[in-house]
Amino acid sequence: MKVDFDKLGGLVPAVVQDHSTGRVLMVGFMNEEAFRLTLETGFATFYSRSRNKLWLKGETSGHRLVVKEISTDCDRDTLLVRVEALGPGVCHEGYQSCFFRTLKDGEWVVSESRVYDPEQVYGSTK
Amino acid sequence: MKVDFDKLGGLVPAVVQDHSTGRVLMVGFMNEEAFRLTLETGFATFYSRSRNKLWLKGETSGHRLVVKEISTDCDRDTLLVRVEALGPGVCHEGYQSCFFRTLKDGEWVVSESRVYDPEQVYGSTK
Repeated sequence: MKVDFDKLGGLVPAVVQDHSTGRVLMVGFMNEEAFRLTLETGFATFYSRSRNKLWLKGETSGHRLVVKEISTDCDRDTLLVRVEALGPGVCHEGYQSCFFRTLKDGEWVVSESRVYDPEQVYGSTK
Repeated sequence: MKVDFDKLGGLVPAVVQDHSTGRVLMVGFMNEEAFRLTLETGFATFYSRSRNKLWLKGETSGHRLVVKEISTDCDRDTLLVRVEALGPGVCHEGYQSCFFRTLKDGEWVVSESRVYDPEQVYGSTK
């Protein structure tokens, strides 16, 4: 039984969830090679749609995602990756989770504080 | 600040998470109209890629998803929808979550029991 990479042009969404808190940290996309590398290395690896290349999460920041468990859904076209996140935050904007904006009365509101300074981690050119 | 529906041909992935347990229940896709209907009705509504039409989750089964909170990510191209799930299970195959298969030693293994009989809910033609 294989993951179905055909439905979305070679990609599947991969939901990343903190294995201890249950918080959803980010959603990335994996192609078949990113999935294989994730399994082989034990670190979540994605395919960057904006940069059109493989992307080892944490390659710049050191904030890697250590894979604890991987599930797939009934259609085998989505992955759920439960991880231990190394470092304070997953989001490149300095937040613990990329989902730091919540809808309140029709507006997206930043609903938490930064846990690190992205300029210190990624440099001022980011 | 708007959700970016352009990156994926008019769709965004929507991760559905149980608001009380934190379990990830399913991932669907929303187009702009599905998102609007979700906000207006308070029930999660998706765009079915296989049927090419709007899809009120639970329209057949009654297992609707009552929206409790919606977040978006740093790129505003993914949604996280925290819900109260009506009914025993979200998956049309009879499981609480669509993510009922877990990778064990390189094989996808069903890692939980069915919580309802899909034939009784959807009929034998499903």
